[in-house]
Amino acid sequence: MTIDAFVFDAYGTLYDVQSVSDVTEGAFPGKGALITQVWRLKQLEYTWLRSLMPSYLSFWDLSKDALVYTLNATGLEARPEMVEGIMAKYLDLEPYPDAVDALEALKGRPLAILSNGNQSMLDELVRRSGLNQHIAHAISTETVETYKPHPAAYQLVEHRLGIAAEKIMFVSSNAFDATAAKAFGFQVSWIERVTPDALAREIEGSETVAPETMFKILRMQTENFGELPDHRLRSLRDLAALTD
Amino acid sequence: MTIDAFVFDAYGTLYDVQSVSDVTEGAFPGKGALITQVWRLKQLEYTWLRSLMPSYLSFWDLSKDALVYTLNATGLEARPEMVEGIMAKYLDLEPYPDAVDALEALKGRPLAILSNGNQSMLDELVRRSGLNQHIAHAISTETVETYKPHPAAYQLVEHRLGIAAEKIMFVSSNAFDATAAKAFGFQVSWIERVTPDALAREIEGSETVAPETMFKILRMQTENFGELPDHRLRSLRDLAALTD
Repeated sequence: MTIDAFVFDAYGTLYDVQSVSDVTEGAFPGKGALITQVWRLKQLEYTWLRSLMPSYLSFWDLSKDALVYTLNATGLEARPEMVEGIMAKYLDLEPYPDAVDALEALKGRPLAILSNGNQSMLDELVRRSGLNQHIAHAISTETVETYKPHPAAYQLVEHRLGIAAEKIMFVSSNAFDATAAKAFGFQVSWIERVTPDALAREIEGSETVAPETMFKILRMQTENFGELPDHRLRSLRDLAALTD
Repeated sequence: MTIDAFVFDAYGTLYDVQSVSDVTEGAFPGKGALITQVWRLKQLEYTWLRSLMPSYLSFWDLSKDALVYTLNATGLEARPEMVEGIMAKYLDLEPYPDAVDALEALKGRPLAILSNGNQSMLDELVRRSGLNQHIAHAISTETVETYKPHPAAYQLVEHRLGIAAEKIMFVSSNAFDATAAKAFGFQVSWIERVTPDALAREIEGSETVAPETMFKILRMQTENFGELPDHRLRSLRDLAALTD
């Protein structure tokens, strides 16, 4: 099947959401790792729960709620200016090292983002990181007031690009997103950032787990909602080979 | 407001889902705690994700998928007979010590369960545990092929009991369930099994966390989807006082 466009998930795929940990650790020394992981897990949870209820709240506000929850649940005080200061990092996340190379290598093809982030968050993130040189469309699910994996979120891509789902390569390192996107009808590449073997070695022999390890166990392994993604790649750099 | 019926969540509220840990530890020595917690977190996640896609799978099959995921993600082999053996515990979970007392004290009122569990799972669980003496209706969301917090799940209660939502006291220790049920329109009692202070003490000073602690952080603290539950109780035994 031909590929007429590449569409990337943003948070966790092009941009490293774990790069908030410097800020969380700076604000709460010794607790940065726990806050970073719980925050991300609750943020995702809230996108699913609010989409189901349904009770839409913008990704910015929902992420703030998830951060407040995290601080409360870990016995820390959620002072408003502290929360705003940490949130600001979401406008300036680091792209993964392989993101820029991969986008360079795909130059000339339509490249887009489909993300849960508010339009204004996405626009600022893409601009500040310089990825706006490569990304023609930053599509936000804000338009349909729901979050992935609701099909209305994935449908936005066809509407905005005018390209049928089966001619689009959807790229995500979020296993649930990759698997649900495949069920929706895209061609899909799942970027597997943590292999099962590496994870098994990380767990071995200990009764407690580092918060990052818990995150990798919960979020970065093969999901199964029927059909698996078409490709399982170790790096975004491997995408270029799919177009040969 | 009068209370014409009490409706209970099953897993985690009347029945201790953590009581699977003897079985998981027996099957995988040293890994029981991690498996138990990851399994429950993924099981809940799958109810949300599949309701959103939507791609319904019965709670029995979905729970089995979540267990297979858990074993794979933690580097263990998911042999079918082992998986079936662990799953069987879901038909015979222990009721919480306060569950029987609470139901006794509410005798004479309509008492029901609203649960994600398949009808056949629920019926067997309620019968084996002896709670069928007290529970007149075990309502399964299987009928509407979705899971909580989808409103179609909560709507089943009014339909089946013929009582308006505002005259029903919905009882759950799952914070997301209690908070979404309040948004739906029930009177709600959230059973707070872990206080913030106790949890903060559990976390203090360590960089890694026990899997149970991670579960308590993620699932057993106050959610905020707008309005909070009406009551925040430490035990199911405190319900009787609400009817005075």
